[in-house]
Amino acid sequence: TLAAPAIAQSAPQVRWRCTSSFPKSLDTIYGGAEDVAKYVREATDGAFDIQVYAAGEIVPGLQAADAVSSGTVEMCHTAAYYYVGKSPTWALGAVVPFGLNARGMFAWLYYGGGIDLLNEFYNTQGLHYLPTGNTGAQMGGWFSKEINSVADLNGLKMRIAGLAGRVMEKLGVVPQQIAGGDIYPALERGTIDAAEWIGPYDDEKLGFYQVAPYYYYPGWWEGNLVLNSFVNTESWNQLPDIYKSLLETACRAATIEMLAEYDFKNPQALQRLVQQGAQPRPFPQDVMQATFAASQEVYAEINANDPAFKKIYDSMMGFQAQTYLWQQVSEYTFDTFMMIKQREGALAGQK
Amino acid sequence: TLAAPAIAQSAPQVRWRCTSSFPKSLDTIYGGAEDVAKYVREATDGAFDIQVYAAGEIVPGLQAADAVSSGTVEMCHTAAYYYVGKSPTWALGAVVPFGLNARGMFAWLYYGGGIDLLNEFYNTQGLHYLPTGNTGAQMGGWFSKEINSVADLNGLKMRIAGLAGRVMEKLGVVPQQIAGGDIYPALERGTIDAAEWIGPYDDEKLGFYQVAPYYYYPGWWEGNLVLNSFVNTESWNQLPDIYKSLLETACRAATIEMLAEYDFKNPQALQRLVQQGAQPRPFPQDVMQATFAASQEVYAEINANDPAFKKIYDSMMGFQAQTYLWQQVSEYTFDTFMMIKQREGALAGQK
Repeated sequence: TLAAPAIAQSAPQVRWRCTSSFPKSLDTIYGGAEDVAKYVREATDGAFDIQVYAAGEIVPGLQAADAVSSGTVEMCHTAAYYYVGKSPTWALGAVVPFGLNARGMFAWLYYGGGIDLLNEFYNTQGLHYLPTGNTGAQMGGWFSKEINSVADLNGLKMRIAGLAGRVMEKLGVVPQQIAGGDIYPALERGTIDAAEWIGPYDDEKLGFYQVAPYYYYPGWWEGNLVLNSFVNTESWNQLPDIYKSLLETACRAATIEMLAEYDFKNPQALQRLVQQGAQPRPFPQDVMQATFAASQEVYAEINANDPAFKKIYDSMMGFQAQTYLWQQVSEYTFDTFMMIKQREGALAGQK
Repeated sequence: TLAAPAIAQSAPQVRWRCTSSFPKSLDTIYGGAEDVAKYVREATDGAFDIQVYAAGEIVPGLQAADAVSSGTVEMCHTAAYYYVGKSPTWALGAVVPFGLNARGMFAWLYYGGGIDLLNEFYNTQGLHYLPTGNTGAQMGGWFSKEINSVADLNGLKMRIAGLAGRVMEKLGVVPQQIAGGDIYPALERGTIDAAEWIGPYDDEKLGFYQVAPYYYYPGWWEGNLVLNSFVNTESWNQLPDIYKSLLETACRAATIEMLAEYDFKNPQALQRLVQQGAQPRPFPQDVMQATFAASQEVYAEINANDPAFKKIYDSMMGFQAQTYLWQQVSEYTFDTFMMIKQREGALAGQK
């Protein structure tokens, strides 16, 4: 089945630079961009060559999207909610408090018109948006003291950003913006009382359990997190169709890879953390209820003034009620039974 | 950033035929193979050209893997458990009763060594295995009468196949093998009392709710279902490296696409089914307990005699306990809260 070579001009040389918002030490998230570059390079025998740079190598991590908008680089790998300071709408391409879980987000993005709606907005910023990775639901973070009721949030200094910070503020939390590497000393010195980061695998490396052992869940502000590529719209428009398709395919593949990698690594890390003294705790129900209510207030405020946000938010949240109707009938009942068996020590792998 | 054309000999013409085990009417599952063919064709400007044939067009649906083993076609798209009659090990590349859910399966396949272990076995059959699609957790099927306890299973004639049939047999069920198109008349005539198929979107088309309205869940025998490609090992070995990589990337992308499509379509279909008279019912807890216990008996019987099965089963089930430890701390608590809100009608999309 091997025949004549294909027409050469269909596979031109394209060299791009992709700046990541993440350091190499966050190997799973950072690896999302490397995965895309690898898939694209291998499939074209190097003709489409994307060089990935870690945060700070050529562009500071939180300026990645700006560097793409301005054409300094063709592409970045980032989390769109980093740019929520420009406008809340940016966050919708990553995740918003009490939003969708990973499966729901994939369904909405790929089949519910999510990608197109988001691109309507991001295109106005000179960017083409491609989902590229997912962490799954994140943890609620590390606390130096137990949170026994919503009153315990009052006055708490917490490293938490964006819309989640705005929600927490309504309950008396003082949100702090602190880079990853500065969180541990801030917790140790008591400059802050709590900090959210990602999940067990990434959190373990930074050692938070030693200074703030109460490890709360769920991270209701990140029921999933979409990592994404932004491509400069002009670079995107100039890209040959064969590479547009390949890049989209590669980004889909990198999405499932990253989620699988986190789902494989997080359980082991959680077990190690518990052995080292981390104390997992569910948020009290009144905290969940109060933060949910506060989120709805934040959304009402934004929607009243920001039609770009409201258009996308209404579509996403319209699907949310649908997805939970289905999930509770199907996978959730299966998982519930299996978790009971897991707690009984009755699963085959526990014998 | 456009430069010289790439070297032509790196992108040779390859034409393959891919026979699907599915009819075009199962558009979402059948579409998995079409997605792969499209991604590969677009990325190579047609140089790597996979023609997809529906079940029966060139090969009967349930002989797809045989046609690939023998080299009649280079590739098929199928569900590996269709071939469980050859040996139970075949089922492990699709799903087994009380096995992993979709997220767990992805983690085990892509990071837990699952794909390599499965290929050790499938290679002995002349096949190279590539996961290509997932349905998510399936429903437990349609029953003409309510199942109120495990005693109600005794003597029940049910369309259910493979290992699940063997489990059900231990509880007095008489398993029946019936093709999709023959299920409705069999239920209508009372030749069978129950039938499992897939989930709301696919089940709706066959109209089962009209003759067997009790729609049970969860389908504990399919906590997820991996669809897969098999490639003839010789064709795989001859495939240029650039196409090997591209095909793997395309299959990963098709996996997330199919799951997203089902997750988008199933909620709407479930709502329509309920409006038309379908009555969703959870399996009673004693049915779940008895079928779980019966599954463990079946596994003990197989493992005692089949080291190929045991090797893969031990790896998969070893990860199962891990994945449920993590999922219940993270996403499950988030989902639980959101489902309470969904039942209260308090989600933004329900206002």
